Amino acid sequence: MEKKIILDGIVVAKHVKDQLKNRIADLKEKGIVPCLATILVGDDSSSETYVRMKGNACEKLGILSERIHLSKDTTTKELLEKIAELNEDPSVHGILLQHPVPGHIDERKAFEAIAIEKDVDGVTSLGYGQTAFGFGDFPSCTPAAILEIMDYYKLNAEGLHAVVVGRSPILGKPVSALLLNRNATVTTCHSYTQNLPQILQQADIVVAAVGKPNFIKGDWIKEGAIVLDAGYNKGNIGDAEYDNCLEKAFAITPVPGGVGPVTISMLLKHTVQAAEKSLKFKVSAAK
Amino acid sequence: MEKKIILDGIVVAKHVKDQLKNRIADLKEKGIVPCLATILVGDDSSSETYVRMKGNACEKLGILSERIHLSKDTTTKELLEKIAELNEDPSVHGILLQHPVPGHIDERKAFEAIAIEKDVDGVTSLGYGQTAFGFGDFPSCTPAAILEIMDYYKLNAEGLHAVVVGRSPILGKPVSALLLNRNATVTTCHSYTQNLPQILQQADIVVAAVGKPNFIKGDWIKEGAIVLDAGYNKGNIGDAEYDNCLEKAFAITPVPGGVGPVTISMLLKHTVQAAEKSLKFKVSAAK
Repeated sequence: MEKKIILDGIVVAKHVKDQLKNRIADLKEKGIVPCLATILVGDDSSSETYVRMKGNACEKLGILSERIHLSKDTTTKELLEKIAELNEDPSVHGILLQHPVPGHIDERKAFEAIAIEKDVDGVTSLGYGQTAFGFGDFPSCTPAAILEIMDYYKLNAEGLHAVVVGRSPILGKPVSALLLNRNATVTTCHSYTQNLPQILQQADIVVAAVGKPNFIKGDWIKEGAIVLDAGYNKGNIGDAEYDNCLEKAFAITPVPGGVGPVTISMLLKHTVQAAEKSLKFKVSAAK
Repeated sequence: MEKKIILDGIVVAKHVKDQLKNRIADLKEKGIVPCLATILVGDDSSSETYVRMKGNACEKLGILSERIHLSKDTTTKELLEKIAELNEDPSVHGILLQHPVPGHIDERKAFEAIAIEKDVDGVTSLGYGQTAFGFGDFPSCTPAAILEIMDYYKLNAEGLHAVVVGRSPILGKPVSALLLNRNATVTTCHSYTQNLPQILQQADIVVAAVGKPNFIKGDWIKEGAIVLDAGYNKGNIGDAEYDNCLEKAFAITPVPGGVGPVTISMLLKHTVQAAEKSLKFKVSAAK
């Protein structure tokens, strides 16, 4: 039997970060320190944890982390003003607005206000459109992580049938778009999909992006498929049954230690890339 | 046997235009005449024909048609300047840049320069992203036409499996996005797709958007499917074999007289909608 590949996100994330170290050093020589501004609104404890993890990951690598914490009573207008201020600030290269914001805020409007050059988390509709049309700089980070893992392990999507389960703006839709751009045939499934097991039976690539623990059953997986699990549910459980999918799969991401760690490294990569781009503009403006 | 439905685009287009007449009259009472600017670059004869058809359709309905014809030697910079001028011109509500432009011009850059409020042809990546995220005003016109036909004939996509053959930025991608937003399970196929006939065998809805005459065979169609043919090839031949698909289909668009006529009416609809929106801005600015 062919050896199964466990797609190790910790290894991929380390590889990405190692490459970034040189780029960050180069930037610092030129007087630029990459900076990610994170905005947290309110007191949701898991959001606080996520933002802290992201900030810490920045600092560990030498990226500045500007952490903005706004009260839960912040209005949409106040949030938009803060985003406008960060858009204008040349020392800030990336802006991340932690999802979800309190219910009274127009989250979509806030996301859309982020300047495309600083949308390192890939939340704007413009960024999504550019990604889908094949010229976006910053696809959202989890889809980017999935592609990064495939690239690291030399898994070519061309001509394969990819089935994406989920259609959120930051995961199911952009990962479908990225796989389509890699010349996969792409089926996007969701809560209205009939016969999901039969559809998954045909999938050479399965992306689990549904947000429900163990939702994808091992029985549904085709022998030899690539299973990419972007789920992270309570108790470190993925969206796909790990052991049962492992039996069938040719390659699979574990949870934890699969897509998750690479997602954060994509945020760092995009921030560095944004800083490099800002430098290019500076150089060409000075000429 | 259940009666087959021939999806008559001429009827649908007439219905759309009839509704627009009142809206145009209302606008005129308020001092606004909707205006579509069309830009043709160079002397391609079929492009000239298309632009003329669009302009004539505008005028027939009482929409102003500002026809700009630039020489084939126009540079990207000159084209961008013209677009910027039209973006600024408050009497122009919609801008259509006829595809294709001469090869030396950066067509994508020119499309992207069209202001989102005037992108009635749905060519910008921002417009596409907004459409995919469910809040776009102007999806590109052929995908919008396909949905308009489905609505007119009360064909509900929810829970159905739609297979789109083609992935262009103005057709395959946006129609996939629109059908996904209507809660269809959507598979997007293209030249790298393996086993297209087997995939189509599962399709409740087939969208032919491939640009090759009679490419989709009747044999590939599932009994009772809805076949929407967006192709228009030389000799008025669609992308799907009409007679053979008709035998299998529950509902089908003919070529000609199917998607084509509705596409132009969508351009008119979007132009009227853009004019109405400009009026709203005017009213709220005056308050």
